[in-house]
Amino acid sequence: MSEPIRVGIVGYGNLGRGVKAALQQSPDMKLSAVFTRRPDALALDVPVMDIKQAPDYQSQIDVMILCGGSANDLPEQGPHFARLFDTVDSFDTHPKIPAYFASVDAAAREGGHLSLISSGWDPGLFSLQRIIAQSVLPQGATYTFWGKGVSQGHSNAVRRIKGVADAVQYSVPIDAAVESVRRGETRDLTAREKHRRVCYVVPEEGADLERIKREIVTMPDYFAPYDTEVHFISAETMKKEHRGLPHGGLVIHNAVSGGGAKQRIEFELELESNPEFTASVMVAYARAVAKMAKLGVKGALSVFDIPPAYLSPKSGEQLRKELL
Amino acid sequence: MSEPIRVGIVGYGNLGRGVKAALQQSPDMKLSAVFTRRPDALALDVPVMDIKQAPDYQSQIDVMILCGGSANDLPEQGPHFARLFDTVDSFDTHPKIPAYFASVDAAAREGGHLSLISSGWDPGLFSLQRIIAQSVLPQGATYTFWGKGVSQGHSNAVRRIKGVADAVQYSVPIDAAVESVRRGETRDLTAREKHRRVCYVVPEEGADLERIKREIVTMPDYFAPYDTEVHFISAETMKKEHRGLPHGGLVIHNAVSGGGAKQRIEFELELESNPEFTASVMVAYARAVAKMAKLGVKGALSVFDIPPAYLSPKSGEQLRKELL
Repeated sequence: MSEPIRVGIVGYGNLGRGVKAALQQSPDMKLSAVFTRRPDALALDVPVMDIKQAPDYQSQIDVMILCGGSANDLPEQGPHFARLFDTVDSFDTHPKIPAYFASVDAAAREGGHLSLISSGWDPGLFSLQRIIAQSVLPQGATYTFWGKGVSQGHSNAVRRIKGVADAVQYSVPIDAAVESVRRGETRDLTAREKHRRVCYVVPEEGADLERIKREIVTMPDYFAPYDTEVHFISAETMKKEHRGLPHGGLVIHNAVSGGGAKQRIEFELELESNPEFTASVMVAYARAVAKMAKLGVKGALSVFDIPPAYLSPKSGEQLRKELL
Repeated sequence: MSEPIRVGIVGYGNLGRGVKAALQQSPDMKLSAVFTRRPDALALDVPVMDIKQAPDYQSQIDVMILCGGSANDLPEQGPHFARLFDTVDSFDTHPKIPAYFASVDAAAREGGHLSLISSGWDPGLFSLQRIIAQSVLPQGATYTFWGKGVSQGHSNAVRRIKGVADAVQYSVPIDAAVESVRRGETRDLTAREKHRRVCYVVPEEGADLERIKREIVTMPDYFAPYDTEVHFISAETMKKEHRGLPHGGLVIHNAVSGGGAKQRIEFELELESNPEFTASVMVAYARAVAKMAKLGVKGALSVFDIPPAYLSPKSGEQLRKELL
């Protein structure tokens, strides 16, 4: 067996912790160091370094997994680290992907490195399902449903409302829509038809509940296009019943093949932990990046560019024998 | 737009017809000719040639799609055509895949060509789901269910029994097994627990029905390991109710990620026409083969080796913008 792939983690929130845990399931990979802005606050069984020291570790790390957020961390960290390391990230602000890809691509080429952007499950595994389904059956309609699960962005939007002490927001696919798609629906469904939003809010003492509720349900983009439920709960209930980060969703492609037959392709995820799963996907793609970088591939790539065999620690021969 | 990819079809049964139909949904590809053992029996809107003339068409065809069967046609045709053309096939005799891969690989390298073996849905898209799921979540159990759908091999096995005029066999996943897997089952399930087999048999006049039934249900490998139902029907009912070739199935991976969370990945196909769908998959992979051959890739590959972007007619930029 060859030397394990040496991995670094940048950022140690839920996702960084998930990557560390996922690496423990991958004997062909090894966590070398964690880089964070507050190294003093963290004690682990691997070296914990200040993120500013990362450039000194170029010879000790094969792939750097960037676990920062898409809003504030990655726009700067993505290109910065792509210049220094082969990297994997989970940049997930869909409309900004083309610009982000371009900036990481330029930086990676400048540094002679390989960077995979936007891994995870959406973008990521869901994107793979969409490209496969639409390539195989071009005459069809593809539907993506998210949930039931916690949306971090929507939860934060509620938390910013005056009088809200804490909040969590679940995106919930509407059963009737899922069922109609499974039965062969091909028309466009509206946002309101596909998902509803359920908020659990811990109000501050004496807050005006009616105003909070109104501000939530009328919030443009985030809530106004949906039917939204708001439930006020205690801090205790929040802690007891809403600590987990479950998620999941569906990609369904309804199509007609060349001879007129109806064909349905469906992919579903049911996740007890969203960050652990996203991290597991990132680790598999880090393996692919390490292999492809060794072959001399440079620049930015997405999941669309990765031959699935590279995700696995097994040899081509084993894969053909066991999994084909 | 560049010149369309020029495709040839070898063998014009259900699968060959499905490929012709699928190509009509792919404006970036074009059917150039069909090669068959009985060209006189076939009239199409494209040239129909004797299979023996195929070598004369090397300069006119970019990818040859081999639509023969795995039992009798492909073991010989696969390497034969791989020496002359870039090819795609749907070789699906699982235990013989490693040997078949080796023989096609040697022939393709000898001829300086690229051959993709075992595309379709199992092997094919189901294999992709297995490799992705197991690479992302290595600590789990993967289950594959087939059906409800017609199994050609099992139908033929029944047809060979003395006194059987015609027969069709459906493989049916057992609901209780699917449900227990969806609820998180991780133990091995037996063949009998996962599928049952349902046969519709048109007996010859005066045939001994009891003997036929006994011969079916006790047939080793094919039926003995399963609970098998046998229904005797008229030739008329056979024609009316069992002409279609629907199929489908499920790949479910139940796993635990590094931090202990349970995660489920599920992929499902519901197909009104098995051959049309298999053909559609082959056409998408023929597109990938044409692109990769242009880049100079040679030898045999499987679906594991193909970057998903190559399956699509869209550019990398479009794909990242629309589908990532």
